[in-house]
Amino acid sequence: MPAPEIQTAVPFRGTWPALLTPLQADLAIDHARFAAHALQLLAAGCGGVTPFGTTGEGTSFSVAERIAALEAMLAAGVPAQRCIVGTFAAALPDAVALTRHAVASGCHGCLVLQPFYYKGLGDAGIVDYFARLIDQVGDARLRLYLYHIPQIAGVGLSHGVVRALKSRYPETIVGIKDSAGDLAHALALADAFMPGVRIYVGHELHLPILARRGSTGAISGVANLLPRTVSALVEQADAAETPARLARVGDLLDRLRPFGAFAANKGVMALHSGDNGWLRVRPPLQGLDLAGLERLRTALEGFHFDPVTD
Amino acid sequence: MPAPEIQTAVPFRGTWPALLTPLQADLAIDHARFAAHALQLLAAGCGGVTPFGTTGEGTSFSVAERIAALEAMLAAGVPAQRCIVGTFAAALPDAVALTRHAVASGCHGCLVLQPFYYKGLGDAGIVDYFARLIDQVGDARLRLYLYHIPQIAGVGLSHGVVRALKSRYPETIVGIKDSAGDLAHALALADAFMPGVRIYVGHELHLPILARRGSTGAISGVANLLPRTVSALVEQADAAETPARLARVGDLLDRLRPFGAFAANKGVMALHSGDNGWLRVRPPLQGLDLAGLERLRTALEGFHFDPVTD
Repeated sequence: MPAPEIQTAVPFRGTWPALLTPLQADLAIDHARFAAHALQLLAAGCGGVTPFGTTGEGTSFSVAERIAALEAMLAAGVPAQRCIVGTFAAALPDAVALTRHAVASGCHGCLVLQPFYYKGLGDAGIVDYFARLIDQVGDARLRLYLYHIPQIAGVGLSHGVVRALKSRYPETIVGIKDSAGDLAHALALADAFMPGVRIYVGHELHLPILARRGSTGAISGVANLLPRTVSALVEQADAAETPARLARVGDLLDRLRPFGAFAANKGVMALHSGDNGWLRVRPPLQGLDLAGLERLRTALEGFHFDPVTD
Repeated sequence: MPAPEIQTAVPFRGTWPALLTPLQADLAIDHARFAAHALQLLAAGCGGVTPFGTTGEGTSFSVAERIAALEAMLAAGVPAQRCIVGTFAAALPDAVALTRHAVASGCHGCLVLQPFYYKGLGDAGIVDYFARLIDQVGDARLRLYLYHIPQIAGVGLSHGVVRALKSRYPETIVGIKDSAGDLAHALALADAFMPGVRIYVGHELHLPILARRGSTGAISGVANLLPRTVSALVEQADAAETPARLARVGDLLDRLRPFGAFAANKGVMALHSGDNGWLRVRPPLQGLDLAGLERLRTALEGFHFDPVTD
């Protein structure tokens, strides 16, 4: 009897929040709180979680810190198959080490963008980078989600790069996380590559449109705060409640915007938990101070988080 | 008798080339060739060398690779006091590890910019980053050169950050490497901070202007190829030969520009040495292929490198 075939080319479904990363007073990752946050989101119905994306300050941690925190999360009971791990790094060997560890740990997949120090590079070098990453990881179980977030990273993913990689690694390249926030860009990716490469948008207000177009999920920052609402935008895109849910998410995004996403998301966690340890971020990002937290509290007046439906 | 006072606030003098990093076939750093290249530049009269800057693809290597290559270079006879090490990284603990190692090894100083994944951050977070770096390195011998190269990194250094850091760490902050290529920006830094913080420009054609303004040296990419010419632009800024030397450097830069600086610099090394191993770069950067090397050879027709005067 042949060995069971490895089904890599199955993309994820549902909402997998781009996990916020709680920190201790010394700015080391707070493993216990990190795992508890992930488990709470899974209990709220999220399909999985995505540690070490942009929202999770992934690149602000060393390889050793990222590996240790993932191991602690899995040990605390987060199922590996419900983790997509951000394994992008400025140096190829770091991305290889992180990706190899995530795959060996049984994680569902990895979210990766190219190195982000050098800008304006040609497609051939970017394809070469991903090819070396995949070849050096050397594990047929690897599912790769290509990550496009040019407004932060300063580098982006072209159709040519996606096409070249999908053609060379059809079982490995399963999706694209498009966080550019540009609906036309996401729809052009969908037209060009779905269903073979699934497109997931980062901007929550575009989720129902992409869901109707065949997208199956979300890696979302706001899902840390509104896991059920974001999940419903993906899984019940045609529900009568969709316009109200979009308005609710849009209202929250508008209220948080003046504080900056990183500080604001952790600020909301601090308000919800009553634990100001949630305010800490790794510099050069800046968290809210106590005065900022009070301004955030004021900005959220009238927006009631419902622990059952949100 | 008191212990000898540590004189940290003495900046470097002369030309310290931003070293190209030669690679083996597997794209690991070629330690022997790296050290030989550095020793050759010192023999050509360079004040020192600068491994792992932007020209040296510093961020494309892991912490372990950067530490091992520096140790090999020192073991091969490059004096530590003639090294300024690029120790910048996306994650604070990586920058701490690299900087601590360079200082403990006796290196003259470190070239550092803030993490470069997140963009558009406020000064307070950037100051906090550098302060944590300096405090965690915790070594009074540290001389820090702040690095401004916004067109590559996507992040930059404000006067406010420099002022805050110099005021807090007067003995540690000794210089700024300004690679923006904008003369007005460099002169404004000089007006604001010299002589307490020495300004070094990356654009070679501006070197004599800054030298007359009180700058004492250069960290230069082209100095890999023209060490004596670049040194003369700094050390003999008022010489009668300065216009001819500027024209010569400008001519070379113009010929190399169409190939991209990374590919072109290594291409010239390959042409000079007859060893095409010099063509290798870490992806996503792209090196010249053999056809590109022939085009570079053609572009350099009529430009004669003089091993004695260049």
